[in-house]
Amino acid sequence: MFSRTIRKTCTCSRVATRSHGLNRRLAHTQAAFNFEDPLGSSKLFTEDELAIQETARSYCQEQLLPRVLDAHRSEHYDKRILEEMGELGLLGATIQGYECAGVSQVASGLITREVERVDSGYRSGMSVQSSLIMGGIYEFGSEEQKQRYLPQLAKGKLVGCFGLTEPNHGSDPGSMETIAKPHPSKKGVFLLSGSKTWITNSPISDVMMVWAKLQSTGKIRGFLVDRNRCPPGTLETPAIKNKTGLRASLTGMIQMDECPVPEENMFPTIEGLRGPFNCLNSARYGIAWGTMGALEDCIARTREYALERKQFKGNPLAKYQLVQKKLADAVTDAAYGVLAAYQVGRLKEEGKALPEMISMIKRQNCDRALINSRALQEIFGGNAVSDEYHIGRHVANLFVTQTYEGQSDIHSLILGRAITGVQAFC
Amino acid sequence: MFSRTIRKTCTCSRVATRSHGLNRRLAHTQAAFNFEDPLGSSKLFTEDELAIQETARSYCQEQLLPRVLDAHRSEHYDKRILEEMGELGLLGATIQGYECAGVSQVASGLITREVERVDSGYRSGMSVQSSLIMGGIYEFGSEEQKQRYLPQLAKGKLVGCFGLTEPNHGSDPGSMETIAKPHPSKKGVFLLSGSKTWITNSPISDVMMVWAKLQSTGKIRGFLVDRNRCPPGTLETPAIKNKTGLRASLTGMIQMDECPVPEENMFPTIEGLRGPFNCLNSARYGIAWGTMGALEDCIARTREYALERKQFKGNPLAKYQLVQKKLADAVTDAAYGVLAAYQVGRLKEEGKALPEMISMIKRQNCDRALINSRALQEIFGGNAVSDEYHIGRHVANLFVTQTYEGQSDIHSLILGRAITGVQAFC
Amino acid sequence: MFSRTIRKTCTCSRVATRSHGLNRRLAHTQAAFNFEDPLGSSKLFTEDELAIQETARSYCQEQLLPRVLDAHRSEHYDKRILEEMGELGLLGATIQGYECAGVSQVASGLITREVERVDSGYRSGMSVQSSLIMGGIYEFGSEEQKQRYLPQLAKGKLVGCFGLTEPNHGSDPGSMETIAKPHPSKKGVFLLSGSKTWITNSPISDVMMVWAKLQSTGKIRGFLVDRNRCPPGTLETPAIKNKTGLRASLTGMIQMDECPVPEENMFPTIEGLRGPFNCLNSARYGIAWGTMGALEDCIARTREYALERKQFKGNPLAKYQLVQKKLADAVTDAAYGVLAAYQVGRLKEEGKALPEMISMIKRQNCDRALINSRALQEIFGGNAVSDEYHIGRHVANLFVTQTYEGQSDIHSLILGRAITGVQAFC
Amino acid sequence: MFSRTIRKTCTCSRVATRSHGLNRRLAHTQAAFNFEDPLGSSKLFTEDELAIQETARSYCQEQLLPRVLDAHRSEHYDKRILEEMGELGLLGATIQGYECAGVSQVASGLITREVERVDSGYRSGMSVQSSLIMGGIYEFGSEEQKQRYLPQLAKGKLVGCFGLTEPNHGSDPGSMETIAKPHPSKKGVFLLSGSKTWITNSPISDVMMVWAKLQSTGKIRGFLVDRNRCPPGTLETPAIKNKTGLRASLTGMIQMDECPVPEENMFPTIEGLRGPFNCLNSARYGIAWGTMGALEDCIARTREYALERKQFKGNPLAKYQLVQKKLADAVTDAAYGVLAAYQVGRLKEEGKALPEMISMIKRQNCDRALINSRALQEIFGGNAVSDEYHIGRHVANLFVTQTYEGQSDIHSLILGRAITGVQAFC
Repeated sequence: MFSRTIRKTCTCSRVATRSHGLNRRLAHTQAAFNFEDPLGSSKLFTEDELAIQETARSYCQEQLLPRVLDAHRSEHYDKRILEEMGELGLLGATIQGYECAGVSQVASGLITREVERVDSGYRSGMSVQSSLIMGGIYEFGSEEQKQRYLPQLAKGKLVGCFGLTEPNHGSDPGSMETIAKPHPSKKGVFLLSGSKTWITNSPISDVMMVWAKLQSTGKIRGFLVDRNRCPPGTLETPAIKNKTGLRASLTGMIQMDECPVPEENMFPTIEGLRGPFNCLNSARYGIAWGTMGALEDCIARTREYALERKQFKGNPLAKYQLVQKKLADAVTDAAYGVLAAYQVGRLKEEGKALPEMISMIKRQNCDRALINSRALQEIFGGNAVSDEYHIGRHVANLFVTQTYEGQSDIHSLILGRAITGVQAFC
Repeated sequence: MFSRTIRKTCTCSRVATRSHGLNRRLAHTQAAFNFEDPLGSSKLFTEDELAIQETARSYCQEQLLPRVLDAHRSEHYDKRILEEMGELGLLGATIQGYECAGVSQVASGLITREVERVDSGYRSGMSVQSSLIMGGIYEFGSEEQKQRYLPQLAKGKLVGCFGLTEPNHGSDPGSMETIAKPHPSKKGVFLLSGSKTWITNSPISDVMMVWAKLQSTGKIRGFLVDRNRCPPGTLETPAIKNKTGLRASLTGMIQMDECPVPEENMFPTIEGLRGPFNCLNSARYGIAWGTMGALEDCIARTREYALERKQFKGNPLAKYQLVQKKLADAVTDAAYGVLAAYQVGRLKEEGKALPEMISMIKRQNCDRALINSRALQEIFGGNAVSDEYHIGRHVANLFVTQTYEGQSDIHSLILGRAITGVQAFC
Repeated sequence: MFSRTIRKTCTCSRVATRSHGLNRRLAHTQAAFNFEDPLGSSKLFTEDELAIQETARSYCQEQLLPRVLDAHRSEHYDKRILEEMGELGLLGATIQGYECAGVSQVASGLITREVERVDSGYRSGMSVQSSLIMGGIYEFGSEEQKQRYLPQLAKGKLVGCFGLTEPNHGSDPGSMETIAKPHPSKKGVFLLSGSKTWITNSPISDVMMVWAKLQSTGKIRGFLVDRNRCPPGTLETPAIKNKTGLRASLTGMIQMDECPVPEENMFPTIEGLRGPFNCLNSARYGIAWGTMGALEDCIARTREYALERKQFKGNPLAKYQLVQKKLADAVTDAAYGVLAAYQVGRLKEEGKALPEMISMIKRQNCDRALINSRALQEIFGGNAVSDEYHIGRHVANLFVTQTYEGQSDIHSLILGRAITGVQAFC
Repeated sequence: MFSRTIRKTCTCSRVATRSHGLNRRLAHTQAAFNFEDPLGSSKLFTEDELAIQETARSYCQEQLLPRVLDAHRSEHYDKRILEEMGELGLLGATIQGYECAGVSQVASGLITREVERVDSGYRSGMSVQSSLIMGGIYEFGSEEQKQRYLPQLAKGKLVGCFGLTEPNHGSDPGSMETIAKPHPSKKGVFLLSGSKTWITNSPISDVMMVWAKLQSTGKIRGFLVDRNRCPPGTLETPAIKNKTGLRASLTGMIQMDECPVPEENMFPTIEGLRGPFNCLNSARYGIAWGTMGALEDCIARTREYALERKQFKGNPLAKYQLVQKKLADAVTDAAYGVLAAYQVGRLKEEGKALPEMISMIKRQNCDRALINSRALQEIFGGNAVSDEYHIGRHVANLFVTQTYEGQSDIHSLILGRAITGVQAFC
């Protein structure tokens, strides 16, 4: 099966690279317009970054793409995918140490873009593991917590999830109802009660990062809930089925009924929404890159269809002005979106990326990916209804990316507040 | 089971009516703004028309709505639906005689709107039977053909379908490849060969209206292909599965390999694209009404959600300006769309509705239904991904309505030609 | 010069009519698609209404159009226009009695459409006279006030204006600062102080309808300020120049400094914002019709340009898909907008037009006129910068119509409130 | 008066710089979100570039801004502006030698952005001088031509213009009708005949770069027409007045009737459309930067207005969600647009900027500047009609930028062709 890598042998960075194919093409001096890199952004990436992109791309096109149609149809997520990604060093890739690859933020963005080029659901599954769980533990965990979880998560041997959203509190997590109260008898143990929903990978997670209000202080704290240590009846993680998008990813709830969690599994110092927001920020950065990959796939597929499909006197659809305009719009937005994500990536590497910058690129790239993919889908005419052209799947997925991790309008208001200094959430 | 009707006892028209509920409310002098009828269009309908709408609405809400979620999930179409509609007189309802109800064009539009309020797929199933098959036979069939098929189709005892689109010819049916040649030995028999695709109801059809080029003349003619009379191996109607929209309807192909059709099953005089375009025109008129029903359902569901869902200090989503604007836009477009469909309906009754008028309302109402339903879907935030809120299903369906029976851009060019006198199909 | 009319000799209605030209064409059974009446709305108008439209159209095309370019360039408003309109019976045309024409609401809308087909500024000048002043006096004035002012206003011998908006209170007139306090010595006299701004025709007005808060009650009341009776220094009506739109209309302020107004010039009973809002409602109804006229003029001019202008191998611009789509969009929105305005007009005649309906058509028709005129303007390419093509003037005007008498977003929130029952003005 | 510079004393580059104000602020490590530099693009500029931007900004805000309102109202262009710019080294700034500053492409873009922050017309006047004339001569002129013209043009002592567009050939210059034929008697002299229109600065130009077809070959060649050397009656350059936008710039025609031009004033080798397109490419690059400046000015002015203007219970407009969304959209597009222009600038410095890249950023930045400035203008409500808020002027200007130097749709088709390899100009 699948084996090409690896962590150990990579000198330049700790993600495996392949030295042929895409990156070579991208690195080549651009002589003619290339619709896949219309503003020459690939020239901005380092050799290492290009190599990492190529590794990710090969894996995604060769290993993920062949599975995605069935996965989407049947709402099935193959847990081995995380192990495969782990083998390649793609999980938690920006983390230094703990058996992680330690790549740049831009490299991490390029990985994300390649995964979402196949499917936003696959990218979601990876994002949760990389940005939310691993990133959260790395940022806020005790050294002991890091040692215990990170290496296993990096290899995909453990699966994690991130529990913030509740059935009644989506855009407004500060009103969460999940509570952590001291165990009446066992010292150093908290009992967690409450429900989290729309939790990617919760049904297969070994460790759940759950945000709950400490009864004593009313402050939000983060807990690492270890499935193995939860007595029967205290934890359920039912899957949510019949989704309209991201069907190749797994979504569920986390239902806790006096679920005991030892104090050593609480993040030591982080308090309030800063913790989860920090994790989300990192995930949102990845989404800004990822959605560009999905859009680029829509462009490539539509272009190919428009060149092959002939109507009216044998002209390809590509010859029609209304078709060309849709393609031009999409290619432009993809090019701009990549440059913006790149810029924020470099700032992130310097510790200068502000949350509002990430709101901006998350919002804009999701919005533009969605709008353009929908416009491109029209070019397929009646055939768009067949899932075999893939674009319908992207459209359905991209709608979800626009609504999760901060619905687009919420980010508008975050930006509006940053611009004006005035709050408009009412 | 279901019985309330009736063809026989209805004096005012031949569609069954109920005298309570909706129409009473709608007919009532409007004292306050009613988001379901924002510009008072219900005042334009006759008593009969309101009664017919009410009958259709009751049936759809009571009989169709409970089935639709499963149907959509499993891509299953319950054939009994056509029989139920037939019992109520909803099929081919504008046809005079042949056991049809003989209602007005506006009444027929109101029926369509009620069916699509539940699901565009259910409306598609009905449209094919009513507008394409029954309408086509009524318009172009010989008296013998009418007598033979219309009463049975009206009752839903026979199912029909309409075969125009081919795998390589969607927007451009004039280039069709299906051919009808004389049987080498049997006089008065044609052999049809070719493939039709994206044919609603083909897998369960008893009679297929197939458009083919007569080998001798190269002119397009219409044939009624009777499944029972086709020898094995000459006709296949495989279903197309894994659709991204209209999953509650059944779609398939018609594959004919020297399929014998007696000359008496050919439409006697109609020749060229005028025949199928005439049928499509009638179906498109119905789509213009139907999509308004789907949009209205999205509005009602979103409004309810926005009033119930609280975020940030307990305010309902409905209190947010960005939410209100989306609702205002959608309600406006629904109101305008209904008025336009109504106007064309009345002109149609007088024989004054031009094909370009129908292009206009088909295009605009589909476009606006799609755009607004997508905007409304955003209000559901993360919950939009659950199909139980129904709006994701409408969005997926409405995309298909925008692409079938003349993709929106094609209608733009039809209108552009009518406006300028210049052809731009290249 | 100009003479063709009249009030006296008109039997069918009291607006003069001509029995040739447009209406004959419009009334004719439509055999082919007519881009000027794409959905056959002219069939909905009575013979009288068509005749009135024709009278208005002839006047506007023959008398107003030749003046508009200079007027717009020099920001000059020819006061004789109101007299000319008065002669034809176009002012306050829906009013019964008082030497007014007493035409239908739809006829009044058709007049408005014809005037704005030439220029939104000319329509503004007429709207103020007809809907705001005459309408307000007719609705809320004492019999004595009506007798005194209406006949002279109807003839255009007196000019009126409407003072509601203040420099600091536009969308929010309830916070107005203009105050009316009792004269310290003269009984039955009020002293008005305060500033009104963006007042069409204020510099040339003989009578100003000023809304002010009564000092004693804090309630808003309406006053008819007679310029002739204002002592020097108590009333100034400076013009506002250098406008970016509506330059063919005259705009100014009303500055009152203890301006004495006799109690007999106060509206007897109306109190609060109901009074001015009622007037505005009527004006807004007119705007919904008028902007369709402006859009229709843009369509006709663009179509003509696109047919005449050749680029690339001698093809007219009209042959390009991107051009045709813009025309198709505009024609569609014009057709829909006319139908909606018509529907509200008929409801208004029956006393059933709700304010929210008028918000809806005002908002939508202004928005769509603006959006489409801008899109059409693009077709003129570099030539659009020349005011001789007229479209730039329409675009500039239509922007103003979108912001005045309820900015579009404000109407969104009015609609949002009506739809949800929840207030979102914060 | 005005003096601060200098060409001579500038060590780092040859454009004058000031070391205080903007650039210091911009260069400072960003701690909080800055709506004027939302994605931290200023960190990408060199110290020199920031200094040049600051010089340009000071000049523009202090010297141009105070003049612009009058200039726009009266359609007056102050010829001294070019001299002032020349003194500062802002003209033809990227040119090496010939008394030009020799700054980077990015620096040149920053200059353009600052000028257009005041007015697109002022930027147009500069672009013509810098990119079209000076750029053209530098690129295609003989050494003698360069020596003769460039230093004087750089100082603004000579004014130049660029004659390509003709009354009947805008988007399609290849069909130009202007012809150059050999003088019947004087050897080495051509006679130019034809009309050019929409020529910025033609009425005050000393030297006109005119593109004409050589009679003998039918090939397009470039000529430098020296006004001083044209006999009376052979050259007219009437101004075009009553423009709807860019009124602070001067526009005219070039009418040549057997106008004699010596062969030494013809560009020696360049032939066909490559010459003018190359010049336009450079100007378009500047427009992509410039329009971002105009948009940024709209943002800053709107933000200020929205914070100051109170409506409904004393809330600033800035508190309204619908207002915040418009600001968020505009700020996002400005940020993205600057990054894209920057990227192309750096590629241009390396000789790797493809024409299609420039089409992309010209189209997108003009479109987004226009769309957003229009949306922002709505926030001003009725006050938008006053030109003193400046935004109406920007909106009118930006529409012109969208149509000139390649109307937006034309660039869509250029991009479409580059993406698909198929031509759709018909």
